[in-house]
Amino acid sequence: MARDRPPLRLPRVRRPPLEPLELYTAKSGDEIIDQLYNFTDKGDRSVALCPEMTPTLARLVAAPERQYKKPIKWFSIPQLFRYERQQKGRLREHFQFNADLFGESDPAADAELISLLIDSLRAFGLTSHDFVIRLSSRNAWQEFFVKRCRDSAKAGEFYQIIDKLEREEPAKSNARLAALGFSLTEVADFIKAGQPSAELNSILHNLALRGLSDFVKVDYNVIRGLAYYTGVVFEAFDKKGAFRAIAGGGRYDHLVRVISGGKVDLPGLGFGMSDVVLAELLKERGLLPQCEARLDAFCLIEDETLRGDSLSLIQSLREAGYVVDYPLVPAKADKQFKRALEAKASYTIKLERAPAGEIVVKFKNLRTREEKVVNPENVAGEMA
Amino acid sequence: MARDRPPLRLPRVRRPPLEPLELYTAKSGDEIIDQLYNFTDKGDRSVALCPEMTPTLARLVAAPERQYKKPIKWFSIPQLFRYERQQKGRLREHFQFNADLFGESDPAADAELISLLIDSLRAFGLTSHDFVIRLSSRNAWQEFFVKRCRDSAKAGEFYQIIDKLEREEPAKSNARLAALGFSLTEVADFIKAGQPSAELNSILHNLALRGLSDFVKVDYNVIRGLAYYTGVVFEAFDKKGAFRAIAGGGRYDHLVRVISGGKVDLPGLGFGMSDVVLAELLKERGLLPQCEARLDAFCLIEDETLRGDSLSLIQSLREAGYVVDYPLVPAKADKQFKRALEAKASYTIKLERAPAGEIVVKFKNLRTREEKVVNPENVAGEMA
Repeated sequence: MARDRPPLRLPRVRRPPLEPLELYTAKSGDEIIDQLYNFTDKGDRSVALCPEMTPTLARLVAAPERQYKKPIKWFSIPQLFRYERQQKGRLREHFQFNADLFGESDPAADAELISLLIDSLRAFGLTSHDFVIRLSSRNAWQEFFVKRCRDSAKAGEFYQIIDKLEREEPAKSNARLAALGFSLTEVADFIKAGQPSAELNSILHNLALRGLSDFVKVDYNVIRGLAYYTGVVFEAFDKKGAFRAIAGGGRYDHLVRVISGGKVDLPGLGFGMSDVVLAELLKERGLLPQCEARLDAFCLIEDETLRGDSLSLIQSLREAGYVVDYPLVPAKADKQFKRALEAKASYTIKLERAPAGEIVVKFKNLRTREEKVVNPENVAGEMA
Repeated sequence: MARDRPPLRLPRVRRPPLEPLELYTAKSGDEIIDQLYNFTDKGDRSVALCPEMTPTLARLVAAPERQYKKPIKWFSIPQLFRYERQQKGRLREHFQFNADLFGESDPAADAELISLLIDSLRAFGLTSHDFVIRLSSRNAWQEFFVKRCRDSAKAGEFYQIIDKLEREEPAKSNARLAALGFSLTEVADFIKAGQPSAELNSILHNLALRGLSDFVKVDYNVIRGLAYYTGVVFEAFDKKGAFRAIAGGGRYDHLVRVISGGKVDLPGLGFGMSDVVLAELLKERGLLPQCEARLDAFCLIEDETLRGDSLSLIQSLREAGYVVDYPLVPAKADKQFKRALEAKASYTIKLERAPAGEIVVKFKNLRTREEKVVNPENVAGEMA
């Protein structure tokens, strides 16, 4: 991003880490409980530490007292929890960037959301050589399914098999597919053909207009595990295929209706991006942002009779916005200087009494090791 | 703060919202459990949603595998939980800014911490007319206590009475004090005399050198409720006395030793500032930062044959760092313009086909209502 500016002020959603357990069982059944960090609280309520943000958002947009303007575009960065064994790229606790859009069923909304995901990853310095969005469609898979199977109750199980296809032994997948009346070959052929549906074509065209074609491809291997997806689904992957999915999302046009008990019907779509895989990828590519503590100046206090004047200068520099540290108590000169280096200070400043009695500042650039003598009131100007 | 610069990068501590219950009972006894949102988890562990950050920090600095350089200066902004009825200025859930310093017992560290609290409040635009730090000392109170009572086991109860003095009926306080062998009169005289202890004088002198005397006063009414404080304690209050304490803190030189089971002994001190009272005060003073969604431009799409070119321009503006919105699907011109106004866009941009066939942009400043026609490639320049 070319322009240097303050953080964007977009509608950010914050909420408590707890939700009623039924928010998750309502849409996924009781089997979801195994994966939740749930408990009974002091008030005898069944609650869970949030495993994902989407049901919470669906609950919030459905609140009848809120007259949110549509379309609603929200982001959030919740801390989320799973009750399961830790794996590489999948921890029991993680932060997840969520972006969601409610109130628009047109594929233009899907394209808008996917372009946000692409731009978010590019903001970290990742390029089309680093990642790709694999775009798929539950609708296309549903069409495939209903053409071959009339028992719609089996659709969920079928999607689960497709979701595991890339991670499971082909023989095992084939056996599970055969039990539903499908063959692995016809499934593989459908994936290989990768014929974009009308909605996928619309999204691809929209992204092409934005110059983002290099970042996206149709790939029916993607179907997403969660039950609530209804339309387009997608996952972002590193191009080397060395990591788990960086991000994933899609349409969930029925979720608000289910969660509001039929009171509110609002199409929705969104994606989540966990800090875990993203950080692994950025680290591997040398793109992890440096979050080291930064120090503009370390004030050396070698003459304790000048501590008061030093504190006064330090305070004025801090009020001018500089980060300044100093030894809280008397310390040896070499120990102080070592501390300034450890803290990666840009400068050291040291008050001294000049022969004529006035106080001067020895001002040293720790990168160039250049040193000069300045008046106390000119120190801020020297650092600017 | 005069200088416009990126957010400071200081050591920030993040941690899960859960802690083992014994982290709190170890230092405060089982009676603390009434105030905690605690439960037994699926692994049959007794845990609690964090009620405060200090024990967690004490646990972290005591971790033997970490060789943190001393003094340690950390900040954190945890989400904290209490299991109690909500009151004005005191919610069951809140965010709290914490700043802590470990490894220095000299009052210079107390002064450094208190100056940070003053500067943090000033950063919101509050002045010495708005707030004051009431400075007190557990040591001074302890001296008062041992001179008059030889049963040190009663000290905790005595501190509890002092802590409630300003909120409780005098007759009730007097009765409780009398039961311990004290009179309300001698306590009131001690508070009224307000004779600063040596450590308080040292802190007052240090703050005076920084030009911060106007922000602090000695007030022995303050003693802090928590059991772990050992030395200087303080609370920040609005000067009108209309709100609860804005922030509070002090020294807890034994806490790391207690929590580490005697393995690590490190003096510590810190303060916490909740978002609840701070937000109430800032709101009352008209100083609450505006966190509204901000939009640089809204792109009106009235000619649908220009949607593709509009998307291309929107993408290039976003890549240049501007916040731009647009109608996802065809909409009436007046509805689009209304949306631009509602979103408080600075500008509207609208692509049009000029008579000669080329595409031009109608660029309108929504504050001045000034409108001009520019080339698409010049829009970013017009907004800069």
